[in-house]
Amino acid sequence: MTEFRSISAETGEPYGPVFAVDGPAEVAAACAAAESAFDAYRATSPAARAAFLERIAEEILAVGDGLIEAAMRESGLPRARLEGERGRTVGQLRLFADVVRKGQWQGLRIDPALPERKPLPRPDLRIRFIPVGPVAVFGASNFPLAFSTAGGDTASARAAGCPVVVKGHPAHPETGALVAGAIARAVSASGLPAGVFSHLVGPSTDLGAVLVQDPRIAAVGFTGSRAGGLALTRLAQTRPVPIPVYAEMSSINPVLLLPAALKARGAALGTGFAGSLILGAGQFCTNPGLLLAIAGEGLDAFVEAAKVAVAAAQPQTMLTKGIANAYRSGVAALVQEGAIELLAEGAQGEGVKAGAVLFQTDAAAFLSNPALAHEVFGASSILVRCADAQELESVVSSLEGQLTATLHMDAADEALAAQLLPMLERKVGRILANGWPTGVEVAHAMVHGGPFPATTDPRSTSVGSLAIERFLRPVSYQNLSAALLPIELRDEARGDGAPRLIDGVLTLA
Amino acid sequence: MTEFRSISAETGEPYGPVFAVDGPAEVAAACAAAESAFDAYRATSPAARAAFLERIAEEILAVGDGLIEAAMRESGLPRARLEGERGRTVGQLRLFADVVRKGQWQGLRIDPALPERKPLPRPDLRIRFIPVGPVAVFGASNFPLAFSTAGGDTASARAAGCPVVVKGHPAHPETGALVAGAIARAVSASGLPAGVFSHLVGPSTDLGAVLVQDPRIAAVGFTGSRAGGLALTRLAQTRPVPIPVYAEMSSINPVLLLPAALKARGAALGTGFAGSLILGAGQFCTNPGLLLAIAGEGLDAFVEAAKVAVAAAQPQTMLTKGIANAYRSGVAALVQEGAIELLAEGAQGEGVKAGAVLFQTDAAAFLSNPALAHEVFGASSILVRCADAQELESVVSSLEGQLTATLHMDAADEALAAQLLPMLERKVGRILANGWPTGVEVAHAMVHGGPFPATTDPRSTSVGSLAIERFLRPVSYQNLSAALLPIELRDEARGDGAPRLIDGVLTLA
Repeated sequence: MTEFRSISAETGEPYGPVFAVDGPAEVAAACAAAESAFDAYRATSPAARAAFLERIAEEILAVGDGLIEAAMRESGLPRARLEGERGRTVGQLRLFADVVRKGQWQGLRIDPALPERKPLPRPDLRIRFIPVGPVAVFGASNFPLAFSTAGGDTASARAAGCPVVVKGHPAHPETGALVAGAIARAVSASGLPAGVFSHLVGPSTDLGAVLVQDPRIAAVGFTGSRAGGLALTRLAQTRPVPIPVYAEMSSINPVLLLPAALKARGAALGTGFAGSLILGAGQFCTNPGLLLAIAGEGLDAFVEAAKVAVAAAQPQTMLTKGIANAYRSGVAALVQEGAIELLAEGAQGEGVKAGAVLFQTDAAAFLSNPALAHEVFGASSILVRCADAQELESVVSSLEGQLTATLHMDAADEALAAQLLPMLERKVGRILANGWPTGVEVAHAMVHGGPFPATTDPRSTSVGSLAIERFLRPVSYQNLSAALLPIELRDEARGDGAPRLIDGVLTLA
Repeated sequence: MTEFRSISAETGEPYGPVFAVDGPAEVAAACAAAESAFDAYRATSPAARAAFLERIAEEILAVGDGLIEAAMRESGLPRARLEGERGRTVGQLRLFADVVRKGQWQGLRIDPALPERKPLPRPDLRIRFIPVGPVAVFGASNFPLAFSTAGGDTASARAAGCPVVVKGHPAHPETGALVAGAIARAVSASGLPAGVFSHLVGPSTDLGAVLVQDPRIAAVGFTGSRAGGLALTRLAQTRPVPIPVYAEMSSINPVLLLPAALKARGAALGTGFAGSLILGAGQFCTNPGLLLAIAGEGLDAFVEAAKVAVAAAQPQTMLTKGIANAYRSGVAALVQEGAIELLAEGAQGEGVKAGAVLFQTDAAAFLSNPALAHEVFGASSILVRCADAQELESVVSSLEGQLTATLHMDAADEALAAQLLPMLERKVGRILANGWPTGVEVAHAMVHGGPFPATTDPRSTSVGSLAIERFLRPVSYQNLSAALLPIELRDEARGDGAPRLIDGVLTLA
């Protein structure tokens, strides 16, 4: 195949302009351009790099409503959601601009020389963090704006000083092309080499495989399926020079309904849960796919309210026909399971439309059947009834790594929650109380990540300002003259606002 | 084999007490104990954890001269070196105690709730970094104290809050047992569960393989050969839950002799180089195994002085017979190379004793023969004569990742150095001017690490206080009540001295 077109999420039919399929030659050209742009880009001052990020935000907004309409057609997501997503995309670029200016990301450390120290003098040692090199980012199917061409990984990689080669998701080539055009205009307006950004498209997975294996690529950001993430990770690890892959893959985001909270507001929780489950046709990494409750007062009210809300839910257009089919297969497999009961289902629709489902089982069945803990991407969730706190703990400790865990609790649940917390901390990247895991704030204190298989690397986050660290590494300079030191490590740079650890003491001045 | 004994480095003969060989049962017991000790240990206050680290240092000193004598017998290293190493071991424990107390490692971030924000309120979000879990550390052959049972990786993992299972290097079981006893006494005196520390010994590599595959192990620290590091990394990556391996493997530490420096002090540089090459029989990860010089004034003086010093060097006892044999094989293979000339060799000795060698070649030969760039562990080095700066750059850009790069330079070399720096930054973890790479300061601004294959993970360091970060990961808490928040994230903890990023602004108060 040498050409492809957008597929309407609504109809499953191709439409609109024709896009040339990129192949190995285009990958090589993009990587060569990224490599040759790297030194110039990483040498930009924090002010210039921040202005570039802000310029990308402006250029995206300048595309106007055509961007929202393109994304609606390709993804089937509603206008309000996509407008919100554009806001988030622009907001995270501005957040990173602020982070770049403040300079903490540089990780500056200075141990001044101690020429008189005995038995040996101490040399002058200075650390800064440098960007790792060109980064490959895979656009996500479920966030055509906020986790694609100008999304989370590209924003953090660019903020770190890395050129980015985006492999656009084949489900939204038009949206990707519009955003890529905006970025290219920002690159040009900022006087940067064009190789700072490249956008590759094509419907096959070969394209991504070639990209990850290109020797000029230094790190990979990926959001998608477990199979896809693991395949890319294997490729990255078996390169002559292995590179890190930050793959966000699968999570069922357990929600723990603790007894006092259930008793106080079981019905309201049931309705709230259904809202989180159904949001965006359940196509969020943080979708609540698992409910854990101790049988007791309020659980019936929760179940009743959740059943009503799920049963009343209308089918929704899923992102692609493939995703809708995978969802239906996953649900059908669960229905076949003897150990699980279908509690409620919304109208199911057909083709690209699918509806919500809610199952229930007990702890023993859940523990003895690992398939019940696999993610079914979409609005499917399982309630696990536990006899007591001990059974609840057994279920929690059986879980794989997750992005989030949620506690619904009242003051009277605090002792149980405190007991669960150390276990949850080891399983997840984010612990919420009395909320729903969908809705990921782009903030400084956000972790969107977690232990395997939620991600391949729990040492970092894909959302929020901490994400810049995944694309940096430390370099130490010993006894370099001021003229050769990076500007930010020279003595005269102090006072520029960036924090410095000087002889082990953190200073802001 | 169920028992083994120390081997005298000097004679190659077994001596002293018999040590039981640990097997899968002991690995499982150690990992189970580490797992069960983890929550109690990570819950220690910074003050208590710091006091524990300091207590380990005291207990090691309290072992007295018997420790130095044991290490001398087993490693063949001289007294002064081992006394220095003990000082470094104790010093790094005290450094980490200070780091733990200061609290920056916790990476505290707080984004207060914005209940009035439109269109959606912002939740309260707080991050702290938690330890990853039990850590496996492999003792190094070349640092029986500073990178073994109580060495760099164990100190940083303990500082992070991780129980440690050490796989002692089979070349120094007696030294390891003495240090392990000291640590065990510190564990007991500090009222910590015994599983905080375990020490496994045995001469086979199976022991380490079982350890890395134990599901309770969350990360691995290793210093040793490339083959060993890559084998452990493969095992760690193919576990059901992959874990990070921080393996420090091989480096030839290029030293660049720039023209003005060579001209000004060629002979002195030659003598200085030989001292660094020969130090500790060349058994340092930072041994200068590659010299790069542009042919010109001073290079002959350098070569003459280096030849004299190398030729005068006495054979030294290497760490083990196996290491001595590998060194001899590596040197013999270089001698066989047509493209390389033996410039000088010291007296070679036999058995466990070996001597220094210096080769030379030209850039074309070096570039066309990748084997010349492989590490020969020991006092072997190759001078590559380059015709001009361009050839020098070609050689630099051909190099694999390294721990260090060294520039010998004068003011007149600054333009060339500035041109080389961006290239060197991408190749190494530490760049030195006018020094020698051997001698790694344990400091805040040290990076002992670097791109593959110097290490498996250039995002961190094994030496210095930054090393604590390799054993930590972030967790975000959303809308948790004060009672449930970790103490350091509660509002009332402010002012405890730990820095906090509050709404994106770093504050020390």
